[in-house]
Amino acid sequence: MAEAKSAENTVFIGVKPVMNYVLAVITQFNEGAGNVTLKARGKAISRAVDVAEIVRNRFLQGLAVQNISIGTEEVQGEGGAINVSTIEIVLGKGK
Amino acid sequence: MAEAKSAENTVFIGVKPVMNYVLAVITQFNEGAGNVTLKARGKAISRAVDVAEIVRNRFLQGLAVQNISIGTEEVQGEGGAINVSTIEIVLGKGK
Repeated sequence: MAEAKSAENTVFIGVKPVMNYVLAVITQFNEGAGNVTLKARGKAISRAVDVAEIVRNRFLQGLAVQNISIGTEEVQGEGGAINVSTIEIVLGKGK
Repeated sequence: MAEAKSAENTVFIGVKPVMNYVLAVITQFNEGAGNVTLKARGKAISRAVDVAEIVRNRFLQGLAVQNISIGTEEVQGEGGAINVSTIEIVLGKGK
């Protein structure tokens, strides 16, 4: 009870194995988060969906997908700016 | 005016280059579709998001993302059934 938890917790999905992120999400819920936002871009978008589905189907069945949004970010690549797609998936306990 | 268009049109996103699917989506809107659903699974999920973003930002600015849903499908692999994640993105003219 040392400090209040932030209402929203975020897990950035990158190139690590899926189960690393699954564990990170479960940990946040176990620490009292009411919802957790998964953020990914580019090829990691597929992995973010995998993480959401595995958490929801295998570990925390009471969770619902509360919102999914997609977007585009400009990233500085070697040959100048390139656009990459992004996704945000909000998992939460309520409906 | 030979026949009524189905209210909903679907483009399945696979392993082809992104612009193939962008063109398929634009064609469906130009043929009178009110909305188009992009469906993908596994690693193609990232590509489906790319297609939606490119269509919306570069070609048909009036379009909105009307709905995004994710799920899991069981697929018969070499060593038995495996689960793959799926996504459906609905692009439409209204809000």
